[in-house]
Amino acid sequence: MLKEYNRYLEYIDGELHLEGVSLKALAEEFGTPLYVYSASHIRDRVRAYREAFPDALICYAVKANFNPSIIRVAREEGAGADIVSGGELYASLLAGVEPSRIVYAGVGKTLKELEYAIKSDILMFNVESRMELDVLNHLAESLGKKIRIAIRVNPDVDPKTHPYISTGMKKSKFGVDIKHAKQEYQYAGKLKNLEVVGIHCHIGSQILDVSPYIEAVEKVVDLYHELVRSGFEIRYVDIGGGLGIKYKPDQSNPEPKDLAEAVMPALKGVDAKILLEPGRSIVGNAGLLITRVEFLKDKGHKHFVIVDAGMNDLIRPAMYDAYHHIVPVVKRDTGYIKTDIVGPICETGDFLALDREIQKVERGDYLAVLSAGAYGFAMSSHYNVRPRACEVLVEKQSYKIIRERETYAYIFKGE
Amino acid sequence: MLKEYNRYLEYIDGELHLEGVSLKALAEEFGTPLYVYSASHIRDRVRAYREAFPDALICYAVKANFNPSIIRVAREEGAGADIVSGGELYASLLAGVEPSRIVYAGVGKTLKELEYAIKSDILMFNVESRMELDVLNHLAESLGKKIRIAIRVNPDVDPKTHPYISTGMKKSKFGVDIKHAKQEYQYAGKLKNLEVVGIHCHIGSQILDVSPYIEAVEKVVDLYHELVRSGFEIRYVDIGGGLGIKYKPDQSNPEPKDLAEAVMPALKGVDAKILLEPGRSIVGNAGLLITRVEFLKDKGHKHFVIVDAGMNDLIRPAMYDAYHHIVPVVKRDTGYIKTDIVGPICETGDFLALDREIQKVERGDYLAVLSAGAYGFAMSSHYNVRPRACEVLVEKQSYKIIRERETYAYIFKGE
Ligand SMILES: Cc1ncc(COP(=O)(O)O)c(C=O)c1O
Ligand SMILES: Cc1ncc(COP(=O)(O)O)c(C=O)c1O
Repeated sequence: MLKEYNRYLEYIDGELHLEGVSLKALAEEFGTPLYVYSASHIRDRVRAYREAFPDALICYAVKANFNPSIIRVAREEGAGADIVSGGELYASLLAGVEPSRIVYAGVGKTLKELEYAIKSDILMFNVESRMELDVLNHLAESLGKKIRIAIRVNPDVDPKTHPYISTGMKKSKFGVDIKHAKQEYQYAGKLKNLEVVGIHCHIGSQILDVSPYIEAVEKVVDLYHELVRSGFEIRYVDIGGGLGIKYKPDQSNPEPKDLAEAVMPALKGVDAKILLEPGRSIVGNAGLLITRVEFLKDKGHKHFVIVDAGMNDLIRPAMYDAYHHIVPVVKRDTGYIKTDIVGPICETGDFLALDREIQKVERGDYLAVLSAGAYGFAMSSHYNVRPRACEVLVEKQSYKIIRERETYAYIFKGE
Repeated sequence: MLKEYNRYLEYIDGELHLEGVSLKALAEEFGTPLYVYSASHIRDRVRAYREAFPDALICYAVKANFNPSIIRVAREEGAGADIVSGGELYASLLAGVEPSRIVYAGVGKTLKELEYAIKSDILMFNVESRMELDVLNHLAESLGKKIRIAIRVNPDVDPKTHPYISTGMKKSKFGVDIKHAKQEYQYAGKLKNLEVVGIHCHIGSQILDVSPYIEAVEKVVDLYHELVRSGFEIRYVDIGGGLGIKYKPDQSNPEPKDLAEAVMPALKGVDAKILLEPGRSIVGNAGLLITRVEFLKDKGHKHFVIVDAGMNDLIRPAMYDAYHHIVPVVKRDTGYIKTDIVGPICETGDFLALDREIQKVERGDYLAVLSAGAYGFAMSSHYNVRPRACEVLVEKQSYKIIRERETYAYIFKGE
């Protein structure tokens, strides 16, 4: 069952290993909470996308996990980067991603960020509003550049996921309504320092059923043909990210090839490079969060396992009511218990799992929180003045630290 | 109306000022997003507590805002500190708080943190479980110390606030059920390296009606008398924090004196020092988040103001569905508009306000998000690789930077 999350994850003599590396040994060496990622899993996922879409450019969505060592692994497998800020551009460049493989979406790009991206000569700006077209054109002009843009269109498709991560519906802040997109393209076409080269769309995240993609891509392709007929040279069609991953034991997730099968018929006849922007489906199940049991508390009517990872380390359960599967790092024959697994933070919202049946644990035991590679460390904070976790990358029985555990002094450096 | 939030907040010639300092000038000097806090407001709030509870020790709850300069202002007015982690101890000591005025609660204190606090000789450990009693006793013994403890009791009172910040209900991870508290005290009383000196309780946060406090304090006082009869020398009764503040224009909040009036009758006859742990009601309305309008987007059916502060800067709207009042930094006669005020982050959950009527704004205008002093910067993150905001403290027409804006290099320092 673990293999369905990550095929490099297994118990060896009752001890959980990732790519042959003992997670207990890592926890003991580096302390907890500890994020551990499997490089081979990341490689496999990028390759699965490349095989499913042989002619496409896969732009890894850095927002899911911005550690430059993670981005670097994706890059080594041929991925570019999808960014949403100047900071993500910085991280991508640190990781050695070529600017010609970077696309930049985002509703609130600042002048500084835009200037940084223009000077870096990235592949394409995915523009989200008429006003941004003007700002970008004006800035490009003042920098003496001509820049490539796509317009992000909003196909008004329901991706059937958490409302916070549905991004392609009509009422959303993202993109321009696909019905009015042509007008925007015509407007953009007249701006001297913009070269209109693409169409962009992204409908949401953690999508487990590929059918909304079909609907969205069909609408995008209609627009493509309309634009081509009007004389636009559309060289890139970016269909976004969003493919879901397995979080719950009974969930199964679509593979890149399922997505390809679903959307390829619609894309037939499109003479443009296809771009994809997967984040979660690249790194989500590459990563685990290892945490230590600090206290047990039996209140009779309710049992608590208190661990050393809090909502500052992994906010998804509190924020999206997300399920993360949790397994013991060392298996034992101690029976099971139904418990809340909660963190040390001063809020009731600080939980990793509620009413969960797990193997009985003791103080000092380690637990592994699965599917923590995406939107885990990336959303972590210093709430309760908690230094953020250490990050370790494993590959083929070896491991290296890719971000040191923070110190108190680091947190207060700016003060 | 602004004065009901913060009496140092006012429009002078149409421009918003805090303690006489122009917020527009600050935004221009330091950039945005920018947190600005009023020191005088913090002083007033601590004084209001001290006047309402003249013999009590007011321990400022550092979790609300851990900037050492903020803690320092509270300390200068005679406040101690309520902490929940080693990091908060570090911050409090940085701010010059005397260890003899620090209390430490938290369900997941680690050995390292406990050792740090024992060695610092803090006033009191607010212990949350039987297991913690044992761990603490054992550790104190190995360090050759005797330490003062209270037991955090859970009075099973509904504070009528957001479920994530209700902490005193039976099903909560915090404290021990008050009904079984005596057993725990008797157990603690036998542990050689613990000196049982207090009772602690905290029922929740953002409480706007003081009646749940009465119920909780009455239960605590019953326990107090029971313990005293059994021979315990209870020197401290810590009734926690949680007093709510005004977020919405039509809200009014209880004052420390209302809390005092409510609980003082019950506390009559208690021969112990009263402790309070207010956080939000000290700093919440001391602080504003200043943000710049980046883009406007009129989708016909929906209008968006896109600003440069995101959910990484202020997560409360996304996390707790919290309302924050938002006002223009510069007043204009431009009429009103109903709009969503949203940030630059790649999620639909990234909003500051939904369907809000505000003065019409233009690109480049500044908005002030009120009531952002507590659980604002403290919960901020690097999501989307966004460097965290700069923090400025103003007092009597002067201002100083108390935390610099982060750089990209800072974010990637650990890598
Ligand atoms: C524009 C864009 N592209 C790609 C992604 C990545 O989505 P996922 O991690 O679900 O693949 C996001 C996520 O928010 C996004 O907003
Ligand atoms: C034990 C304890 N004391 C005090 C506080 C401060 O609460 P507030 O900021 O609502 O006053 C909290 C908040 O979580 C808490 O958990």
